[in-house]
Amino acid sequence: MGISKPAAERLARLARFLEQRAEAGKSGFISSSELEQMTGWPSHTIRKDVSQLVSGFPEPQDGADMFSTSAGYDPVALASCIRRVLSLENASHNCCVVGLGRLGSSFLNYEAFAGTPFTLRAGFDSNVNRIEILQGEFPLYPTFRMKEVIPRFDIKLALLCVPGECAQASADKLFSCGVTGIVNFTSVVLSTPPGTAVENVSVLDALGALATRLAFNRLK
Amino acid sequence: MGISKPAAERLARLARFLEQRAEAGKSGFISSSELEQMTGWPSHTIRKDVSQLVSGFPEPQDGADMFSTSAGYDPVALASCIRRVLSLENASHNCCVVGLGRLGSSFLNYEAFAGTPFTLRAGFDSNVNRIEILQGEFPLYPTFRMKEVIPRFDIKLALLCVPGECAQASADKLFSCGVTGIVNFTSVVLSTPPGTAVENVSVLDALGALATRLAFNRLK
Repeated sequence: MGISKPAAERLARLARFLEQRAEAGKSGFISSSELEQMTGWPSHTIRKDVSQLVSGFPEPQDGADMFSTSAGYDPVALASCIRRVLSLENASHNCCVVGLGRLGSSFLNYEAFAGTPFTLRAGFDSNVNRIEILQGEFPLYPTFRMKEVIPRFDIKLALLCVPGECAQASADKLFSCGVTGIVNFTSVVLSTPPGTAVENVSVLDALGALATRLAFNRLK
Repeated sequence: MGISKPAAERLARLARFLEQRAEAGKSGFISSSELEQMTGWPSHTIRKDVSQLVSGFPEPQDGADMFSTSAGYDPVALASCIRRVLSLENASHNCCVVGLGRLGSSFLNYEAFAGTPFTLRAGFDSNVNRIEILQGEFPLYPTFRMKEVIPRFDIKLALLCVPGECAQASADKLFSCGVTGIVNFTSVVLSTPPGTAVENVSVLDALGALATRLAFNRLK
């Protein structure tokens, strides 16, 4: 479809930014430099990503006119165009959370999933007591029931919140049960079989990126 | 220094990947395609980033020889070169965590900060009862004491874990107290003053990126 993978990832994130901005009641056109401030990506990267999007359209001119004027981008039109071109519309993904410590259990009543294509269907923990004490909006199971539960709910994505020393073993188990994508909250670098993907979410990476950006601002 | 901001961010993250790999006892050279599998970034991007790094060296040839051979990169030499060129060595950053619900309190005994340039110095919550009940390895304060505590510990970075409806107000407060960088765990898009930076950490963004990557793999 002519869009590079990093561009596709940025665009997917951009769509969410734009939709949140609209939900927060902010309307009006938005310039690529405002988007730079919002996202931290250079404005020329954003313009290039959007132009890749337009070139993916059957009729490029119409696509371009749809969301871009000299005043900037129409945020709602751009977001919906991104979703359409990247086939993110109407997608629905069943997810599970693995490891119900403080971090994992913070997803038990996580309202931010409402209205997104992602639904939490199950939680897993190796500690049976913990499962009995905790209450979520979805059922909780002991880890040994993964093999039965994950295919039953057609779960393809998992939030991995286990201690670091169990991370690879849990990931292997998840992949063997049919999960294809893991959001990895541990600080362990996971080995993955072909056709699967891991997205690392790490406070240390985020702090590192911040420190780099702030140092970069000073060096400029 | 001739390195673009996105490249600097990727390189900083790459350094951490390589160091973790070494800590996990994996040794030997690593190819850019192995790095692609590990990070999700295209191997040509990684090679380009590393070449930007080399061009930032006083003596390019020496720099290149140091960590790159036909067998791949020397992970330890590459990581230390990244830290040196990006001035990430010997840096030390005082951090605080704001909002001590399930997510925020998961940082109270967070061992992964050991050995990193980041140190948690303080936690804040508007609920005084919560502060009295929780115990961390650093002191906890009611939110109204930010103005006194943040400058005292020279805190420049904050982990923002408050509910979405308080996110912008908390961020404004943090910036006004001297914080320059926020890791934003809320799903709110924050407005930021010039000279500051926000790094968004969102499970929804991570899931979105995963879904995009997996869809992309299928389209290829």
